[in-house]
Amino acid sequence: MSRIVIQEVATRDGFQIEPAFVPTAEKIRLIDALSQAGFSRIEVSSFVSPKAVPALADAAEVFSGIARRPGTTYVALVPNPKGAERALAARADEINLVASVSETHNRANMGMTPEASIQGFAAIMASVRGQVSVNATAATAFGCPFEGVQPEDEVLAQVERYLALGVDGVTLADTTGMANPRQVARLVARVLPLVGAERLTLHFHNTRGCGLANVLAAYDAGARRFDAALGGLGGCPFAPGATGNICTEDLASMAEEMGLSTGLDLDALIALSRDLPRLVGHDGPGQVAKAGRPRDLHPAPPLKAA
Amino acid sequence: MSRIVIQEVATRDGFQIEPAFVPTAEKIRLIDALSQAGFSRIEVSSFVSPKAVPALADAAEVFSGIARRPGTTYVALVPNPKGAERALAARADEINLVASVSETHNRANMGMTPEASIQGFAAIMASVRGQVSVNATAATAFGCPFEGVQPEDEVLAQVERYLALGVDGVTLADTTGMANPRQVARLVARVLPLVGAERLTLHFHNTRGCGLANVLAAYDAGARRFDAALGGLGGCPFAPGATGNICTEDLASMAEEMGLSTGLDLDALIALSRDLPRLVGHDGPGQVAKAGRPRDLHPAPPLKAA
Repeated sequence: MSRIVIQEVATRDGFQIEPAFVPTAEKIRLIDALSQAGFSRIEVSSFVSPKAVPALADAAEVFSGIARRPGTTYVALVPNPKGAERALAARADEINLVASVSETHNRANMGMTPEASIQGFAAIMASVRGQVSVNATAATAFGCPFEGVQPEDEVLAQVERYLALGVDGVTLADTTGMANPRQVARLVARVLPLVGAERLTLHFHNTRGCGLANVLAAYDAGARRFDAALGGLGGCPFAPGATGNICTEDLASMAEEMGLSTGLDLDALIALSRDLPRLVGHDGPGQVAKAGRPRDLHPAPPLKAA
Repeated sequence: MSRIVIQEVATRDGFQIEPAFVPTAEKIRLIDALSQAGFSRIEVSSFVSPKAVPALADAAEVFSGIARRPGTTYVALVPNPKGAERALAARADEINLVASVSETHNRANMGMTPEASIQGFAAIMASVRGQVSVNATAATAFGCPFEGVQPEDEVLAQVERYLALGVDGVTLADTTGMANPRQVARLVARVLPLVGAERLTLHFHNTRGCGLANVLAAYDAGARRFDAALGGLGGCPFAPGATGNICTEDLASMAEEMGLSTGLDLDALIALSRDLPRLVGHDGPGQVAKAGRPRDLHPAPPLKAA
């Protein structure tokens, strides 16, 4: 049976955009439940400025409170050397460095050029080597909300720079949900030979509704590792009401129906997803939590007269 | 440039499940606007019992009120000989006959076995031949909410019976959104040689979130014609809150981003979709109407200090 790896990012990419602060104890409880549901990778939180992202100001407390399940890699997003230091102190198993391919997006998000971000990553690599696994994300790889589509050669160049720094994994991120399946197939076909399926993650948002189609295109092109958020949490600052990350349980359901193994307890995920409105104060875009799995059959209604 | 045909079904498969009756004049105005937006096929309404589906009790008035655009085929769903008679009187260009592959589903929906439904279709074919185009739909082709997955051989057998009756087109319908991309690819590969791409329609629901992934799988297997509903209208009687049909403008956006031609004015569709809450009294699941097209760029924010 073929296998895909789903990295859960709800407590990072989902919670970071929620207006209501999810209490630290609830975050810890959710992450522990996600560990129990079988995830081999969980992006726990971000070590960014608490002023910029108050929703994740408790990253260190969350890392110190969770139960570490053997076999699960607990990841921290890190934008700069200061963040890397805090992530190491919190005993993250992996840090995820992020720079945008788009200069405008990186300047807006990080206050510096992509070049300056990547030079910062070199400094981080020098200081953390051997202490922690490192993943590097090329954000806006499938398009920038300010600049539009990014040249594939520039995405490739950024991936090559990441690899030259000695990172352990690379993520191509469709940061604001602009990707389409043909573009995904082309870019994965070019990046996969450089990175390898074991080390490449695809990060899709469902902003335009085709997130799982993009997963299918990436899978068919050889990709095997995908970010997703429980309940489809997350969002897009430019599109109020638009969906965010692709939904973990919708992806897991599709994968299992296709005969792919995820290693996840899908019924447990659905139960956790159904509890999310209590934490974030609103309903979410995930579908399987509402409709049930395709194999959840219904009793036949009474027969009509002919 | 490759081309796909999207048949708009919002005023039939969408409105039929809406608790609020959409006024006849609004239905006519919407269908006229859809014609102007470029659809070559619109499923206008159903000639079913007004007691069973009060939302579509005005099917005849709608057909008589719309402006017929040359080049657009206006379709009526028809369950039985009585419905076919009414559709002919209303000057439908095409009737769409529906029987489920699943016996339990057909008994629940139609009050008879699939065999009895198909025998009724033979009578309809005999009486309408030469007067109207006929499409026949195999409902629950990818799964029945009561029985589960249907054997592919039975789906094939139903398609062959439709073809033996002399129908002009065949639809494989994922009536309650149970399909997965691998299943879709397999079934399309088997049905396409019998029916041909020009005459085969795929009808997907997004009940579990993978509707556009199923479109992608069907397209890659050679299918070119798809049902979709503006705004993702529609629903599933077994899953309150679950989405219904795949969303027209989300599909059109994905197709255009992939370089496929749809013949549709996507900006006009988005404007029509944004007006739907006024008609149905609630927000819908369509994404592109909320987020805009991927190519709709945003002004860059002011630069942060480094």
